[in-house]
Amino acid sequence: MTAFKLTLEYDGTDFEGWQVQAGGRRTVQGVLERALADLGGVPVPLVGAGRTDAGVHAVGQVASLVLDTRLDAETLARALNARLSEDVAVVASESAPEGFHARRDARSKLYTYRLWNGRSPSPLRSRRFHHWPAPLDVGAMAEAARHLVGRHDFAALQGAGSGARTTIRNLFRAAVEGESGAEIRFALEGDGFLRHMVRNAVGTLLEVGSGRRSPDALPGLLASRDRRCAGPTAPARGLTLEWVRYGPAGARNPTESRGVGGASG
Amino acid sequence: MTAFKLTLEYDGTDFEGWQVQAGGRRTVQGVLERALADLGGVPVPLVGAGRTDAGVHAVGQVASLVLDTRLDAETLARALNARLSEDVAVVASESAPEGFHARRDARSKLYTYRLWNGRSPSPLRSRRFHHWPAPLDVGAMAEAARHLVGRHDFAALQGAGSGARTTIRNLFRAAVEGESGAEIRFALEGDGFLRHMVRNAVGTLLEVGSGRRSPDALPGLLASRDRRCAGPTAPARGLTLEWVRYGPAGARNPTESRGVGGASG
Repeated sequence: MTAFKLTLEYDGTDFEGWQVQAGGRRTVQGVLERALADLGGVPVPLVGAGRTDAGVHAVGQVASLVLDTRLDAETLARALNARLSEDVAVVASESAPEGFHARRDARSKLYTYRLWNGRSPSPLRSRRFHHWPAPLDVGAMAEAARHLVGRHDFAALQGAGSGARTTIRNLFRAAVEGESGAEIRFALEGDGFLRHMVRNAVGTLLEVGSGRRSPDALPGLLASRDRRCAGPTAPARGLTLEWVRYGPAGARNPTESRGVGGASG
Repeated sequence: MTAFKLTLEYDGTDFEGWQVQAGGRRTVQGVLERALADLGGVPVPLVGAGRTDAGVHAVGQVASLVLDTRLDAETLARALNARLSEDVAVVASESAPEGFHARRDARSKLYTYRLWNGRSPSPLRSRRFHHWPAPLDVGAMAEAARHLVGRHDFAALQGAGSGARTTIRNLFRAAVEGESGAEIRFALEGDGFLRHMVRNAVGTLLEVGSGRRSPDALPGLLASRDRRCAGPTAPARGLTLEWVRYGPAGARNPTESRGVGGASG
């Protein structure tokens, strides 16, 4: 048995999220497990670092798995890519230490959220960008986002149906980049994320950008621990899991190594 | 009757090209004409500046039309966008001088071709980039491309089934930008393009980048006027019509004005 660490890119538009569900809907985990079974490996459950929802994309999702195979990491990646559809691919593959667990061992993750703030829709951005045609105050959103950085109880930004034991998370970065009338990018890096936390944060920041909420209201919102005080959940299509970072050896941004079989931290 | 100039963006993946065809397949012209008919306008034939093929995208396609309507240009754009699917949109709209013809009056067009030169596939680029995993010599391709600039007979790069009267075209620019192992972009600007001309040029430049053809072979290839001497046709998905420029008033790049109803040259 060999442990592997796979880095995955996918266009989430036509997936019902990462996790295998009852009812056989198309999920990233599901199509990967079928491809693994097709390779003759015992179809072991894959563990994904982030359980992305339906419509959410990934540039650097990380999955751990244990497989009874004689294939090396690079050959495994090539064999999987030959069996996967165009909207998902293994972009890096390496053997992992025994017991490696993609979710439990993750130290930090970066999620980005993309907004198209042009007046008219942009068909070539429609799969990855949320279209927001009204004017936005980018500076106010950036100021509000800074209140999210640090160790906080994020219960007010947690979606329903979550089974998280604790709602305390540590955000290392919460940035808003871009300009009004063009592409705007939200970047949230943290040690963990609650269900819908990024999309609820973006929905709340959009209220700030629209002048319906003050940047200074964010600390009070967090203190309320009340989901009803936050803004609506922003649509899934804008969200991308950019990378996952592991252990001390993983100081490097994993998406910097794009080659199949290349080392990634 | 009012003449209009519409600027269109579309993701060509799920279209059988611009032009209405026998058999009722889904085309950009077809869905626009249906939306116009839906608005109560006499369904006039639209003229597109470039007859993009199946799978080819546009950021700044221009269409001319004459319509019996009391709607102003901006209202027309909004009404059309409300009726169009997510993969096509009117991104600028203005009234045009009587007799304006999007194709005949065009002075120059810019087509780009996007290549993903990473070793593994990139699902988030798969609709707009052609994946070429093997190493490429970008400098050699750029050198070869320079031989295409100027007034030439491009018969060697013309696809079959074209009805063009003359195969002489004037290319103002032929550039290759990017780096090996990452995104590479070909940019061809000219006063007109033969059928499959950009894709055949890219297919030929890829042979140069792979070391199978010398950059110096390009003048001889053009002189041959023989399609069999050129490289294969690169896939449609990498190609995008970026903008179309008109008359002396149109010195400005039309894609710089993105607002519906904004002036664009």
